[in-house]
Amino acid sequence: MDAYWRAANYLSVGQIYLYDNPLLKKPLKLEHVKPRLLGHWGTTPGLNFIYVHLNRIIRQYDLSIINVTGPGHGGPGLVANTYLEGTYSEVYPNVSQDEPGMKKLFTQFSFPGGIPSHVAPETPGSINEGGELGYALSHAYGAAFDNPYLLVACVVGDGEAETGPMATSWHSNKFLNPVHDGAVLPILHLNGYKIAGPTVLARIPRDELDALFRGYGYTPYFVEGDDPEAMHQLMAATLDTVVAEIQHIQRDARANGFGERPRWPMIILRSPKGWTGPESVDGKLIEGSFRAHQVPVTAFVETPKHLKILEQWMKSYRPEELFDEHGRLIAELAELAPTGERRMGANPHANGGMLLRDLRIPDFRDYAVKVPQPGVVIAEATRTQGEFLRDVMKLNAEARNFRIFSPDETASNRWAALFEVTNRCSTAEILPGDEHVAPDGRVMEMLSEHQCQGWLEGYLLTGRHGFFSCYEAFIHIVDSMFNQHAKWLDVARDIPWRRPIASLNYLLSSHVWRQDHNGFSHQDPGFIDLVVNKKAEIIRVYLPPDANTLLSVTDHCLRSHNNVNVIVAGKQPELQWLDMDAAIKHCTAGLGIWKWASNDEGGDPDVVMACCGDVPTLETLAAVKILRQHFPDLKIRVINVVDLMALQPQSEHPHGISDKDFDVLFTRDKPIIFAFHGYPWLIHRLTYRRTNHQQLHVRGYKENGTTTTPFDMAVLNDIDRFHLAGDVIDRVPSLGSRAAYAKQLLRDKLLDHKAYIEKHGEDMPEIRDWKWKA
Amino acid sequence: MDAYWRAANYLSVGQIYLYDNPLLKKPLKLEHVKPRLLGHWGTTPGLNFIYVHLNRIIRQYDLSIINVTGPGHGGPGLVANTYLEGTYSEVYPNVSQDEPGMKKLFTQFSFPGGIPSHVAPETPGSINEGGELGYALSHAYGAAFDNPYLLVACVVGDGEAETGPMATSWHSNKFLNPVHDGAVLPILHLNGYKIAGPTVLARIPRDELDALFRGYGYTPYFVEGDDPEAMHQLMAATLDTVVAEIQHIQRDARANGFGERPRWPMIILRSPKGWTGPESVDGKLIEGSFRAHQVPVTAFVETPKHLKILEQWMKSYRPEELFDEHGRLIAELAELAPTGERRMGANPHANGGMLLRDLRIPDFRDYAVKVPQPGVVIAEATRTQGEFLRDVMKLNAEARNFRIFSPDETASNRWAALFEVTNRCSTAEILPGDEHVAPDGRVMEMLSEHQCQGWLEGYLLTGRHGFFSCYEAFIHIVDSMFNQHAKWLDVARDIPWRRPIASLNYLLSSHVWRQDHNGFSHQDPGFIDLVVNKKAEIIRVYLPPDANTLLSVTDHCLRSHNNVNVIVAGKQPELQWLDMDAAIKHCTAGLGIWKWASNDEGGDPDVVMACCGDVPTLETLAAVKILRQHFPDLKIRVINVVDLMALQPQSEHPHGISDKDFDVLFTRDKPIIFAFHGYPWLIHRLTYRRTNHQQLHVRGYKENGTTTTPFDMAVLNDIDRFHLAGDVIDRVPSLGSRAAYAKQLLRDKLLDHKAYIEKHGEDMPEIRDWKWKA
Repeated sequence: MDAYWRAANYLSVGQIYLYDNPLLKKPLKLEHVKPRLLGHWGTTPGLNFIYVHLNRIIRQYDLSIINVTGPGHGGPGLVANTYLEGTYSEVYPNVSQDEPGMKKLFTQFSFPGGIPSHVAPETPGSINEGGELGYALSHAYGAAFDNPYLLVACVVGDGEAETGPMATSWHSNKFLNPVHDGAVLPILHLNGYKIAGPTVLARIPRDELDALFRGYGYTPYFVEGDDPEAMHQLMAATLDTVVAEIQHIQRDARANGFGERPRWPMIILRSPKGWTGPESVDGKLIEGSFRAHQVPVTAFVETPKHLKILEQWMKSYRPEELFDEHGRLIAELAELAPTGERRMGANPHANGGMLLRDLRIPDFRDYAVKVPQPGVVIAEATRTQGEFLRDVMKLNAEARNFRIFSPDETASNRWAALFEVTNRCSTAEILPGDEHVAPDGRVMEMLSEHQCQGWLEGYLLTGRHGFFSCYEAFIHIVDSMFNQHAKWLDVARDIPWRRPIASLNYLLSSHVWRQDHNGFSHQDPGFIDLVVNKKAEIIRVYLPPDANTLLSVTDHCLRSHNNVNVIVAGKQPELQWLDMDAAIKHCTAGLGIWKWASNDEGGDPDVVMACCGDVPTLETLAAVKILRQHFPDLKIRVINVVDLMALQPQSEHPHGISDKDFDVLFTRDKPIIFAFHGYPWLIHRLTYRRTNHQQLHVRGYKENGTTTTPFDMAVLNDIDRFHLAGDVIDRVPSLGSRAAYAKQLLRDKLLDHKAYIEKHGEDMPEIRDWKWKA
Repeated sequence: MDAYWRAANYLSVGQIYLYDNPLLKKPLKLEHVKPRLLGHWGTTPGLNFIYVHLNRIIRQYDLSIINVTGPGHGGPGLVANTYLEGTYSEVYPNVSQDEPGMKKLFTQFSFPGGIPSHVAPETPGSINEGGELGYALSHAYGAAFDNPYLLVACVVGDGEAETGPMATSWHSNKFLNPVHDGAVLPILHLNGYKIAGPTVLARIPRDELDALFRGYGYTPYFVEGDDPEAMHQLMAATLDTVVAEIQHIQRDARANGFGERPRWPMIILRSPKGWTGPESVDGKLIEGSFRAHQVPVTAFVETPKHLKILEQWMKSYRPEELFDEHGRLIAELAELAPTGERRMGANPHANGGMLLRDLRIPDFRDYAVKVPQPGVVIAEATRTQGEFLRDVMKLNAEARNFRIFSPDETASNRWAALFEVTNRCSTAEILPGDEHVAPDGRVMEMLSEHQCQGWLEGYLLTGRHGFFSCYEAFIHIVDSMFNQHAKWLDVARDIPWRRPIASLNYLLSSHVWRQDHNGFSHQDPGFIDLVVNKKAEIIRVYLPPDANTLLSVTDHCLRSHNNVNVIVAGKQPELQWLDMDAAIKHCTAGLGIWKWASNDEGGDPDVVMACCGDVPTLETLAAVKILRQHFPDLKIRVINVVDLMALQPQSEHPHGISDKDFDVLFTRDKPIIFAFHGYPWLIHRLTYRRTNHQQLHVRGYKENGTTTTPFDMAVLNDIDRFHLAGDVIDRVPSLGSRAAYAKQLLRDKLLDHKAYIEKHGEDMPEIRDWKWKA
């Protein structure tokens, strides 16, 4: 095993340094070394050590293990190990298990057109990108849920351990049920330094470290030292103990049912940073110090003797004992690795698309809200959606491949119907007063958006399905996680051996326009601004204006692959506009004219009133009514947008409508008053190339908010019916002398509104009770 | 004290419910109750309990305490207490300490035009908005740094305790030095539920809870129960112990110097949710259950007997014993509160602008890089900035009012000069191999962007100065914290009694164009897209192209107030363009023509080449050279943008230039090729109202990235010199037949480039060594 470890270390150093002469058959010369040295040595030998020992227990106990590597900078180590076990050459045949293949392995690393220096989608066996840190453990737990025969090893670096998301994700053990979930084995890898400074967990006394992880609910096992021989013995013995403990927990729970939350084992591995690397260079300590973090010896042109250090270092692994003359790992060592799908690089759970089964989905039409005519019936859109999701949950209960994730907002966002068929998950203490909490619940609620997102990503990446329900403003907490997941999907779709996975679905409710009671801190519709920065092939944004459109969109999202779908929808009782047939048609088109609300009868309108989002739609239609009353001849075309991406040119997004269609819908020269759910400039950004962009006037949230009434929120941002009607009057020159009179009436209405809410604390009845058809 | 607590509880319930009849002199009727009931009762009695007991120790030990309230939904409690102590009426004279004032106090709460239901900027004594959760403890530590005589009490709800940022912020104690910092007293308030579900920390056994906080390095004291009398005794005794411990730690450290990290005390308070509220309503348990979270009894119209419950509940506090007939707190109780600035609502630390002293700042001109001519000298901009900041640190060492915050990227972002005058801060173990680590270091490095941001916010809000240095891509981790801080500043600037505080300054380096070695996961320039969603009065975005412009911008940011300043700048060795005089002039204007690079000599150009950001500036100038060579007659105007907000119309941003000036600079009809650091559509969003927008063609990062060479990153996104030159050729019709030939040459160059990097792994020498003047 030590020899296998040396082989992995040798290949890791080779990737960082060598351009040629991979087996060091010739004396090492400058031309054998890459001109640009990139990579991270420090964490790598420890990762290799862990990998080799995991290989042993896989064989010993016939385990199915995937390995989530938090310290992503250890890319060379994971590449080296998947190469040694044969997976790498299977998915990248050019990187063959011989001398030319080894040369290719070395040169491609951190090289243009090659592979990244981190553990990445390109790395077989990985479900965790090692770029941004913090999410390894929540990914690991996400992978373990509903995978009873899977053991997820998760290496957490002591740098990553300082992040917030990681610090809370240790608590995931209160959500893992040994009856039907797999196990997670966290391995906290202390090597003392992050980039240049010491780490927190490496510098607290052992009694605190021990207490911390006992407090987190684990039984910690320490593996500490720097002597390889002793460390091998200690690690092997510890892993035997840990596996026995996990198997005992699982056997007990599966035989006797869930009793109480087990205290799962974990390992604290303390080894020197840059272990087995050069002890010192130019008199400065390397091994065990922060200087081992990246490339520990450089400047070969300036200091030729460094070349000798590198050569001695690499030769210290005795490559001639590890590889035969053709560069192939000697058979005796190769046999130490697991075979087939037991190899961690080939475990299908880490290429979740291979295991993905479509959801069973009931016919969403069965959940339709009856809408005999537009704008009369009142319903709560997300409550209807919750009933649909309840039955999705029910139909897939046996398959155990669908979960809901939310920071305790499932009920608040009106998905309470789910609790008719499942519960909130908790394996911690449950009290008699609790409602809908059980150890086998499939609604995952922790007040950490990071945790929800991380669990869901891990769940999806291992081939299952899920939905994340969140308050709109606070989804910004996971902006960066969304970014990283979108980047993962973007890279993964170009990797032929990675199979498509289920999309990541967000419901953003309790949105900006109805956070009037929680006030300014809860008002931010900007997540979609962030989302549209990512690749068009990946991202989708939907703003269904009512229940039936929401149902149609939800059905579509549950069936899609490799996307991030963002749905923004209201949870409050609101007017319904479309019956199911109309909703399906509308959602399929993405946007369209609402003929029943328009009076341009196929001819040219005087003005286009466009709307996107539930509240903007309501206010637009109310404005249309006001305008009709004052200007019966005014030809208004109403367009509603469900699929925001339809606004973009076809060249920019696959859902974009053609310029020709856009011109037909929005006209080439008539004023467009666009009421938008989010920040108004997003609409400009999406449409600036369209013909009629000069005539486009957008209202949206412009960061005016406070605790007030729902309608007043619209007024504060000039997106209410009176302002919208005023905008039309200002922009249609033909209205003549009646315009001034109408404008005065609108101003009066706004004054009435202000006076009323200041006195009564709620909106005027004529606003609250307004309907399209009285 | 129990009576004082009852008074606070009475006023809290009153705020949630009453529109009139504040002293319940008349029998409670429907018209006395607000029509829209909003607020959160659950956490409030516990917060009141804590406040009352903190009042006692302030008086007993003459302490200076501020109270950071994590459970922000407990707004009514904090408002009630600052009202009782008199602060509230001082800053809001209409809310007087009499019956009309009490009526106003009740009606304004969660009412249009009134105050939010959360602890917010409007709340005297607060530095922490209780909207988005997770940051209370890092704010508390930020407040305590360099405030040796301040005790920061910090209430952490068990909901908030589940968030990632909170879970790691407990480790802040490894950065607090009892010699010159104040103390933080965390009070973990367990009341069992978040919104509807149970909380993690309330459902683990006491031995785990105890171990967890010992593992975090604290000595936990438990205060548990529901009998008010017993709880008062226990809390008072515990606080006496805790104060004695803190004072012992501080006396010892201040007499003998820093020895080792103390194990600071903390309190774990377990009390029922909705304590002292109705036990049950309609047969459902309220007190101690999740149903107490918001408004526990409602529907007075439908169920008139509920009115009786409310009345009995409020009368259970015996208001007649607490307030005199005029509604004033009886003198005996009023005397229990501290006086003057000792009142937590009036402590000047919680209104940091009152204590703010300007920084001593050396003359930034003294740090100028000598630039005898543009585009020849090479320097690292952020290294120069680091030298300037080193001396800012030195000059303010005695004032102790300036700190640097970074997730271990201070050295990586080239601010190592700081370590000539200070160190990284750590009060944990320090080993001989560590460099620049000391318990009194002023560089705060923890691998948690949340922690850096939270500490800095706390430090600024209490009247000090700071700078946050971060990798550009990973600043997205704190998107949501930025949002909330910008919202805080926006609200605070309209509150007359809140004084301006120092701006929050970001350096974003290791940016998208030079993360070629770390690859795709490290490439995201989208933070500024998020930033520009916030109020124009608050936000500033600077992209200085070289060292001297960076110095000028840095000086400006250090002097500014109430802003969030985002500076994006490169750390790599790069060509320098402007000498100091030119840099100052350029930065003052925000954008301007670079005459030395232009050849339109005051006349009309054929094309405008605009650039913003260091790499786009380099590529633009290289493109200019190429074009000059092929088309000597082509009149090119080069415009560089430092202050991104200058592009917006004046009506949108105070830094925006006038439309007239914009037309003069960018012409009304000539093509503009704009090379931008970030996502290209941001430039469209900022300029869509400008005359010449139709002719604007923007290149920027379009999410094409990988591990490759620096120049190849530009090529992948079409922003390199060859593409930019090609863009000009495509858009200037007058170039005639020479155009096709030149385009072919450019295409050949791109092929040469690809071939070269695939072979050599680095950029062609003609790219690497390019200079403006050869």
